[in-house]
Amino acid sequence: MAQQNIYDNETFFNGYKELREREVNANNLFELPTLFALMPDLNGKRVLDLGCGGGERCIDYLKHGAASVTGIDISEKMLAVARSEHSDPKITYIKMPMEDLDSLEGEFDVVISSLAIHYVEDFEGVVRNVYRLLCDGGIFLFSQEHPLATCYSGSESRWTVDENGRKIYANIADYCVERRNDSTWFVEGVQRYHRMFSTIVNTLADTGFKILKMAEPYPTEELVEKYPDYYDLYHKPDFLFIKSVK
Amino acid sequence: MAQQNIYDNETFFNGYKELREREVNANNLFELPTLFALMPDLNGKRVLDLGCGGGERCIDYLKHGAASVTGIDISEKMLAVARSEHSDPKITYIKMPMEDLDSLEGEFDVVISSLAIHYVEDFEGVVRNVYRLLCDGGIFLFSQEHPLATCYSGSESRWTVDENGRKIYANIADYCVERRNDSTWFVEGVQRYHRMFSTIVNTLADTGFKILKMAEPYPTEELVEKYPDYYDLYHKPDFLFIKSVK
Repeated sequence: MAQQNIYDNETFFNGYKELREREVNANNLFELPTLFALMPDLNGKRVLDLGCGGGERCIDYLKHGAASVTGIDISEKMLAVARSEHSDPKITYIKMPMEDLDSLEGEFDVVISSLAIHYVEDFEGVVRNVYRLLCDGGIFLFSQEHPLATCYSGSESRWTVDENGRKIYANIADYCVERRNDSTWFVEGVQRYHRMFSTIVNTLADTGFKILKMAEPYPTEELVEKYPDYYDLYHKPDFLFIKSVK
Repeated sequence: MAQQNIYDNETFFNGYKELREREVNANNLFELPTLFALMPDLNGKRVLDLGCGGGERCIDYLKHGAASVTGIDISEKMLAVARSEHSDPKITYIKMPMEDLDSLEGEFDVVISSLAIHYVEDFEGVVRNVYRLLCDGGIFLFSQEHPLATCYSGSESRWTVDENGRKIYANIADYCVERRNDSTWFVEGVQRYHRMFSTIVNTLADTGFKILKMAEPYPTEELVEKYPDYYDLYHKPDFLFIKSVK
């Protein structure tokens, strides 16, 4: 299985860093508020962060009362940022791709993954390991690129645009074809895996999880008034969240 | 609340009847096989069929061993067919829109609804009543028009077609705008309600259901070879199924 370590690509890393440092981006406006709205009580909890990247969230989880945070990531560059900028005695950073979770030991109360799981081919393997690592009643909360975003193959335009340049609808092709759909994001060939809603839900249910909440965040009317471009998210949301309990 | 009784419209009723009598239609190829693949063991069970129509399924459920079947439907015409063509001492047909489920008493082991729930505005009310009417451990299995089908508003073409007339992608607009999206199906103004995946899943989860299985059926390769038009379903499935347990 080909694991892609795109975050250690210099061009990608710099583009990504610059994007995340902007105040107005989809992460700050939609992803993070939804993540924290769905967050269980972290007080005194042992948290595992899958794809922790630069560790910003690990620090957030401590601020929300977590007793300990373990962050794993495939990228040496991202972990270097995490260790230098977001270190704490209660945080352990481990270089480990999600595909190697079989080798992780321990017990956690909460497993969180923010926008990383769509990079993994073996979703079922990740879910099985998360279930193993969680205590009874433990919570698994993850976000990923929305299935209407990952399904796009890249061979056609993602949008149909009217004469005024307004995106009037999203072009959805091969939603039912589950495969790796590479995208261009700072660099070409960013590997991401498309899965249908039903595959995601069934993998969780078959493993034993009870689904508590699903979210597909989209902008408020006020936000669209301020940033009209974000109306596109009404056609095709960027993110999918699922919160489940063991 | 406006309940639409479209099946009592003469033009609609005749068009629908003719369609369902064809051997090759989306119901026979995708909806029914998936419904029966997800069906729990009906042996000795008390079954409630929401939107039973002409009662074809009620007879099927008896054949699968159900002890009793209660079929409710809003349409007098459909129930007349049911009573004359699919009657049985173990089947009770009741003229009742799903919006009036508050007034239904009884306890059931299995509640099934095939392609009717997207006609109902108050999904939460239906789910709450199904939960009330089910015994502990009872199963709720329903199919509906797929959210990628109900989201379409009708103001634009549903498909983008290439120079050979092949549908190359589905045009998805306003997936995140939940509202009544009327469609033209034999007659104009067939009322159906669009709900996002997250709304459907959360309504079930918040009511107390545990989701066991989700399905979005699409054709096999063999079937597409035989009926190439059905490739469109890879872009945008027609049906969504969810099976939950109380």
